[in-house]
Amino acid sequence: MADLKSTFLNVYSVLKKELLEDPAFEWSPDSRDWVERMLDYNVPGGKLNRGLSVIDSYKYLKEGKELTEDEIFLTSALGWCIEWLQAYFLVLDDIMDSSHTRRGQPCWFRLPKVGLIATNDGVLLRNHIPRILKNHFRDKAYYVDLLDLFNEVEFQTASGQMIDLITTLEGEKDLSKYTLSLHRRIVQYKTAYYSFYLPVACALLMTGENLNNHVDVKNILVEMGTYFQVQDDYLDCFGAPETIGKIGTDIEDFKCSWLVVKALEICNEEQKKLLHANYGKADPANVAKVKALYHELNLQGVFADYESKSYEKLIASIEAHPSKAVQAVLKSFLAKIYKRQK
Amino acid sequence: MADLKSTFLNVYSVLKKELLEDPAFEWSPDSRDWVERMLDYNVPGGKLNRGLSVIDSYKYLKEGKELTEDEIFLTSALGWCIEWLQAYFLVLDDIMDSSHTRRGQPCWFRLPKVGLIATNDGVLLRNHIPRILKNHFRDKAYYVDLLDLFNEVEFQTASGQMIDLITTLEGEKDLSKYTLSLHRRIVQYKTAYYSFYLPVACALLMTGENLNNHVDVKNILVEMGTYFQVQDDYLDCFGAPETIGKIGTDIEDFKCSWLVVKALEICNEEQKKLLHANYGKADPANVAKVKALYHELNLQGVFADYESKSYEKLIASIEAHPSKAVQAVLKSFLAKIYKRQK
Repeated sequence: MADLKSTFLNVYSVLKKELLEDPAFEWSPDSRDWVERMLDYNVPGGKLNRGLSVIDSYKYLKEGKELTEDEIFLTSALGWCIEWLQAYFLVLDDIMDSSHTRRGQPCWFRLPKVGLIATNDGVLLRNHIPRILKNHFRDKAYYVDLLDLFNEVEFQTASGQMIDLITTLEGEKDLSKYTLSLHRRIVQYKTAYYSFYLPVACALLMTGENLNNHVDVKNILVEMGTYFQVQDDYLDCFGAPETIGKIGTDIEDFKCSWLVVKALEICNEEQKKLLHANYGKADPANVAKVKALYHELNLQGVFADYESKSYEKLIASIEAHPSKAVQAVLKSFLAKIYKRQK
Repeated sequence: MADLKSTFLNVYSVLKKELLEDPAFEWSPDSRDWVERMLDYNVPGGKLNRGLSVIDSYKYLKEGKELTEDEIFLTSALGWCIEWLQAYFLVLDDIMDSSHTRRGQPCWFRLPKVGLIATNDGVLLRNHIPRILKNHFRDKAYYVDLLDLFNEVEFQTASGQMIDLITTLEGEKDLSKYTLSLHRRIVQYKTAYYSFYLPVACALLMTGENLNNHVDVKNILVEMGTYFQVQDDYLDCFGAPETIGKIGTDIEDFKCSWLVVKALEICNEEQKKLLHANYGKADPANVAKVKALYHELNLQGVFADYESKSYEKLIASIEAHPSKAVQAVLKSFLAKIYKRQK
C-alpha cells in the first residue's frame, strides 16, 4: 500500500513536469515557478483517497490480474485528474467561504503574495485536467467519453455548490427551507458524483465499458457518497476533534447539515423555536444550546440507526449486481467508509 | 445585420432554456431562477463581436452560399460558447481586479445578494460550454476537436491572465520587468487566442477542416489580436472617454501597457526616473506627469507608425494565403478593427 502510494506520487511528478513544459504556452522562469509552487501547495497534500481509488477499482475490474506498467501509469493519471479537480474546487471554495486553513496549512489565497490571484490559479488547476487527458489519452477509443465524463461531473459539482450557497443565503432568513430532500440534493451533487462515481467511472472507461450500461453502479455510488457526507455532517458535531483533525463549525455557519435537518424533522414546536433562535450564531452559548437539543433528540441514536440501515441497503444493492468484479469494487469502497471515525 | 443579431439573440434563448432543463441536474425553482438571472446579467450584454464573427467567418468560408437554418443555428451556438467563455473570464477578472462596473452596470459580484458566490457562477458559466457542445455537436465528426480547441484556448487565456497577474505583482517592485516581449506574451495569451483565433477556428472545424493545417491562419489571427490589444492600451490613455465608454486607469493600476513599455524603450535616463517615480500611483498629479511624458515622447506618433506598419504586415500575410475564402475571413476581421476609435 505504501508502495502504491509512492508509485502514485511518482506519477504526480511526471504529470507536473509535462504541464510545466506544455507547448501550448510560452513559459518563463517566473511563470513556471508560480505554477509549480501552486501545484505542490494544493494538489498532492490530501489523503489522495479519490485518486488512489481509480487504481484500486481498475484492479478489481481486472479481477486481480497483474497490471502492466502502462495500466498503472494511466490509472494513476486519471486518479490525479480527480485530485486536480478536487484541488480546483477546494481553492475556490476556501475563497468563497473565507476559510483560514486547509489540510493543516493556510488556505492558498491566504498567502500574502497570492490573494485573489488564487481565483485564476483555481482556473488553471481546472485547465490542467484536459491537458493531462490530451497528453495521455488522445488516441484511446474512450477519450471523448473521458472528456464528457469530467465535464458532466464538474457541472454537477458546481451545481451542487450553487444550491449549497444559495440555500445558505435563503436559510439564514428561513430555517424551515432545510429539508431532507434539499440536503440530499446538495450532497449528491456537491460531493457524491466527483468523490464516488467519478473514480469508478474512470476505471470502467479504461476497461472499455460504456457508462450508459452502468447506471445502476452510478446510483449505488451516489447513494454511498450521500451516506459518506451524512457521516461527515455527524462527525462535524459528534466526532473527536483530535481524530477528525478539525473543530466543526456547521452550527455556527448555518450549514444545511443532516443533523439540523433531522432535528427539524423530529422536534416539537418548542424545540423548533429553540433551533430557530440559536442555529447559525457564532456565540458558544447558542452553539451549546443547539448541541444540547441534538442530545435531547438522541441524534446519535438516530444516526446509528441511519448508518446500519444505509449499510444494509447498500450491501443488498451491491449483491444484486450481476458482476462479481463490480461487486468487489463497490464493497471495497463501502468497507473504507463504513463506521469511519474520521 | 440587425437581423443577424436578432437571430443570434434568439439562439441565446434556446440555449438558455436547454441549460435550465439540463437533465444532469435536479432543478428547483430557486436554482433555476438564480442561473437564469446570472446568465441574463452576464452573457448577452456585450458587443457580441466575438460570437457574431463565428457566423461571419463561416459565411466567408462557404463563399457566400446561403446558410441553411441548421448551419445558422450551429454557428450561432458556437458563437455563444465564445460569449459564455468571455462572460466566465469577465466575472472572475472583475473579482480579482476589484472592479466596480462592467458593460455599464455594477459587476456581478458587487450585487449585494451575490458577492463571492460569483466565483461559483463563473465556474458554472464555464461548465455550460461543454453542455452546449454536447447538446448540439455530440454526433459531429469534429466534436472531439471542438472540445480540444475550447480546452486549449481556455488554458492559454488563463495562462496569459496568470503572467499578467504575477508580473503586476513583480512590476510593482521593478518597472524594468515591463518589456515589449513580456507585453506581447501577455496580450497574445490573455486576449488574442480566444478573441481572434477561437471564432475562426470554430468556423473552420464546422467546414470539416483540420486545424493542424491552419497554423498560418492561427499566427495571423494572433498577430491581429496583439495589434487589437495595443489599440486598447493606446485608447485607454488617448481615446475619448465618451467614445470608448470608460475612463482608462492603466497608469494608476500599474498595468503592463504597450504605452509604458514603449516609453521605457525610448526614454532617456532622466525620463525613466520620472516614470519609475510616477507610474502606478492613484494621485492625479502622478498620472498627469506620466501622461505629459507620453506626449513628450510622442507616443501618439509612435503608435500611428506601429498601426500602419502592423496593417501592412497583416495585409501582406493575408494575401500570401492560398485560399481566397480564408483571405476574406481575415480581411473582414482586420477591417473591423483597423484605426478603430473605440
